[in-house]
Amino acid sequence: MVTRTRDVIGGFVHDSTPTAEIERVEAVFAPLTTAVRDLVDATIRTTVPDEEVRRAAADVAAIVERLRSRQLPGPAGVRYNDEGRAWNWGNAVVGRRNAVAPPLELVWDDDGLVHADLTLGAAYEGPPGLVHGGVSALLLDHIMGETASHRHTRTTFTGTLTMRYVRGTPLGPIRLEARIEGTEGRKVFVVASVLDAEGPTVEAHGVFVEPKWAAGLTP
Amino acid sequence: MVTRTRDVIGGFVHDSTPTAEIERVEAVFAPLTTAVRDLVDATIRTTVPDEEVRRAAADVAAIVERLRSRQLPGPAGVRYNDEGRAWNWGNAVVGRRNAVAPPLELVWDDDGLVHADLTLGAAYEGPPGLVHGGVSALLLDHIMGETASHRHTRTTFTGTLTMRYVRGTPLGPIRLEARIEGTEGRKVFVVASVLDAEGPTVEAHGVFVEPKWAAGLTP
Repeated sequence: MVTRTRDVIGGFVHDSTPTAEIERVEAVFAPLTTAVRDLVDATIRTTVPDEEVRRAAADVAAIVERLRSRQLPGPAGVRYNDEGRAWNWGNAVVGRRNAVAPPLELVWDDDGLVHADLTLGAAYEGPPGLVHGGVSALLLDHIMGETASHRHTRTTFTGTLTMRYVRGTPLGPIRLEARIEGTEGRKVFVVASVLDAEGPTVEAHGVFVEPKWAAGLTP
Repeated sequence: MVTRTRDVIGGFVHDSTPTAEIERVEAVFAPLTTAVRDLVDATIRTTVPDEEVRRAAADVAAIVERLRSRQLPGPAGVRYNDEGRAWNWGNAVVGRRNAVAPPLELVWDDDGLVHADLTLGAAYEGPPGLVHGGVSALLLDHIMGETASHRHTRTTFTGTLTMRYVRGTPLGPIRLEARIEGTEGRKVFVVASVLDAEGPTVEAHGVFVEPKWAAGLTP
């Protein structure tokens, strides 16, 4: 995965919208994204009678039709403006307008640790009551990619990713942690974990590669 | 991840609901799940005016309230009946009532290959126009776990999973393929790929382990 670039290379689009306007739009969409996330959860857990389910389906379809009366022709992509603000509203892990995203909010600590605290509900289940192993992989891939890109100061692609499942991760509050373990030429080695209150449940190692074309762009 | 058990071990719940009733409920919920999946996509891609976004948020919140008037206290879990039918409606990859799931429909070929054809849209984006690397990991973890469990005839947990990213996977139609490469005691080795029209984009190796308590249950 590309975690950063300074140009349109790789499909990143320069967009002159000022940061203040981006943040205004994000604020307008936040309640909708939250409501859609709640709807995903409710669709899994509801036990209302069939006629209520059918009525909900018709009502949701009507809202979709209204929203689709004007829309982008394809996915949201990744855009950035002159102020260095980037936005990727459709990103599967951190997209501010994507109800599939948990969402993840990364915190960059002073000592090089990158972490995120989040709560995973019914939509992220695999084995009964546990986080789907693939969801752990999804979240780890993302936090490790962002860690490798060194807070978006270099472009890196995921080379290999290895996950070791220590034990099941219960649904509920979890923590993700990642840090750079070392670098070697254009390779960046990252380690990361999923943790619950008792400690690590999944451990991961990743090798990220700075492509040749990007190495020259790095400050 | 637990991919199968014959008992309540691991939280699997026996439920006497007949298969015919399960399938009736799935048919009632299918249009709602599809509409919610469309809504996730539309929330990312819409360009309607702010007041339309606010109105959609209020309308979605009202539907959520109706659906939540009666619901399960927690996640959906995994249930199975006397006819050997299992259902995991909340599963993050294959759950029939989970709009986060693409969803994946696995096909078991005669020669031991397990495959799935699916189309990934705006909600699964990572780099611009490409499938999020973690989404590939999510889907690979799932198909490999199901492959290791040998069409649900044995219980296996994911031990380790290694993904090698060959190149970006464009959003759109993709194929997943998995097969068992070998076994060694209680270990099952699985290989899998994500492919687009040009060939493999991600390659994966997994080691799955049949726990000691389950080895005795295997037919």
